Amino acid sequence: MIRPTDKSFAPVVQERIDNLNKPKGSLGRLESLALQVALVQHTLTPSLEHPCHILFGGDHGIEREGVSVSPREVTWQQMKNYGHGGGGVNMFCRQHGFNLRVVDVGVDYDFDPAECPHIINCKIAHGTRNFLHEEAMTEREWQQALAVGAAQVDECRAEGCNVISLGEMGIGNTSPSSILMHLLLDIPLAECVGAGSGLDATGVQHKRDVLQAAVDRFRGEWPAGCPVPTLVRSFAGLEMAAAIGAMLRAAEHRMLILVDGFIMTACMLAASRMDEAVLDYAVFGHCGDEGGHRRMLCAMKAEPLLSLGLRLGEGTGALCAYPLVQSAVNMLNEMDTFSHARITKYF
Amino acid sequence: MIRPTDKSFAPVVQERIDNLNKPKGSLGRLESLALQVALVQHTLTPSLEHPCHILFGGDHGIEREGVSVSPREVTWQQMKNYGHGGGGVNMFCRQHGFNLRVVDVGVDYDFDPAECPHIINCKIAHGTRNFLHEEAMTEREWQQALAVGAAQVDECRAEGCNVISLGEMGIGNTSPSSILMHLLLDIPLAECVGAGSGLDATGVQHKRDVLQAAVDRFRGEWPAGCPVPTLVRSFAGLEMAAAIGAMLRAAEHRMLILVDGFIMTACMLAASRMDEAVLDYAVFGHCGDEGGHRRMLCAMKAEPLLSLGLRLGEGTGALCAYPLVQSAVNMLNEMDTFSHARITKYF
Repeated sequence: MIRPTDKSFAPVVQERIDNLNKPKGSLGRLESLALQVALVQHTLTPSLEHPCHILFGGDHGIEREGVSVSPREVTWQQMKNYGHGGGGVNMFCRQHGFNLRVVDVGVDYDFDPAECPHIINCKIAHGTRNFLHEEAMTEREWQQALAVGAAQVDECRAEGCNVISLGEMGIGNTSPSSILMHLLLDIPLAECVGAGSGLDATGVQHKRDVLQAAVDRFRGEWPAGCPVPTLVRSFAGLEMAAAIGAMLRAAEHRMLILVDGFIMTACMLAASRMDEAVLDYAVFGHCGDEGGHRRMLCAMKAEPLLSLGLRLGEGTGALCAYPLVQSAVNMLNEMDTFSHARITKYF
Repeated sequence: MIRPTDKSFAPVVQERIDNLNKPKGSLGRLESLALQVALVQHTLTPSLEHPCHILFGGDHGIEREGVSVSPREVTWQQMKNYGHGGGGVNMFCRQHGFNLRVVDVGVDYDFDPAECPHIINCKIAHGTRNFLHEEAMTEREWQQALAVGAAQVDECRAEGCNVISLGEMGIGNTSPSSILMHLLLDIPLAECVGAGSGLDATGVQHKRDVLQAAVDRFRGEWPAGCPVPTLVRSFAGLEMAAAIGAMLRAAEHRMLILVDGFIMTACMLAASRMDEAVLDYAVFGHCGDEGGHRRMLCAMKAEPLLSLGLRLGEGTGALCAYPLVQSAVNMLNEMDTFSHARITKYF
């Protein structure tokens, strides 16, 4: 059960922010971010402790339909590669002091623990089923994946972490994300589908056709609609389900949640339909160019911090925004108030 | 004399970037930033050394016309306050490891060196003249101010610094910035004038009227136009002239220059009209909401890294963007190449 943040505390925080030594509102988005962090931690002096980035990996049955420019084996290759420290996510974690957890929830490969000691083995299946023909995962797999995400967050929490960032590795996972956006927001499918990691126009059209057929199948099975969790597990990847479980549990713990690009935004959208209060804890790091990402953010009234054309995945868009969260926190803790600084208060 | 960066090296850098372990182009703006930094330092393995933030302070004669919501004394009060470490600029400098230089070029106040050991005294005058009636500074003051900026950069360079950020404190300095934008880009004055640190609609209209009158006076004196430096010194503040001198000298030293918001962008515009090659070295940190800032950036083909509604000045928009510059550099130095990581190269 997620408790919403206490909005009655907001005027107290806002007064503090307005009395800092700067023209009112002059730190722009950093001010609204500071307000959010103060509400999440219910204090005027928030702190960011032991930041952790959890990267969930999983493969997708739908990849067999040629909806991605990248082949399936890239998922396991990249999961392995994170152990060498040379991936994008490694670089950002080092730069911003994040502990990195690489979690195999559903990769179609058996990692050798001796060769890949960095991979946390929580494998539920060797990828999802092909949602063009059947549900991506069973109810049992869905519950297991949610639990994997929750358990990872519990471990982070036990280590003193109060801010998590979430990322994914799963070739093909823009496809289920587009469908979740389409079905949860009632936006035409064509506007929800983009080029993923680099499809050309023909490829995008093929992807749209495949996804439309999958949606048609789903609607045939659920003509009167279905509960959100059933909808989500019909399409999502195991790595996405784990991320949703992580988001919901992190909000229960009152932790700040850094949300990455298109796929993690779709997961946060799904999570918010399961418990809307999760959004109180969500900081959206980056708005990318992938089909309709901005529209999905708007639907959640999210104001992403960055817009840099990133489309690497792995959570890099969330990590990249972290220094701004630190700045917002520093603002509350380190800036003088007008009265203390003996400055003529200006507006 | 500024040497442009060697563009013939660009394909070499681009090939390196394209072979890093990620879909081509997937780190978006960070990739073009990495290319720029590699060109500036002419190496595939750039580094950022001893970053320094130089904050120039100066007052403005035009402030007497009521063009700013903030009173003139805020300039010296804030300059003093930076010594306590509680200003916005202090906070960002600490966070990102910048050495802070606070330089008095033209503040209308005599600082007590014992009380303000943090202020570097390079005072040329107690503020500029009122450009509604006369040139803001003389040719001699202009040259002195350029030299102050250049000398500061020389000192930074001697300390091993290869990346500088520039900021300003000067109540009233959006006014000369708007005029520089208007005259150098031929954009209607009304579109160049904004609310500064918080004018209301009536205040903005008054500011426009005053600035129009000043431009009319100037045009009357120079009916056939005048050289750019004469134009700039007719309106700019001493802190702005020092910043222009710093920009030009930093580019001579092949240092990276982080450009802040509206005022520093106007200074970079002026600098680029004195030597266009300076733009090769400029990284634009932030696009604010102040009248036409985006248009001014577009005119220089600048792609600002952030857009967070900041309007504090002091160089905070430049500093705030610094972690992205670090990320771009880290990308070149720390990410695996496809061949090394043994990943199926995907596109």
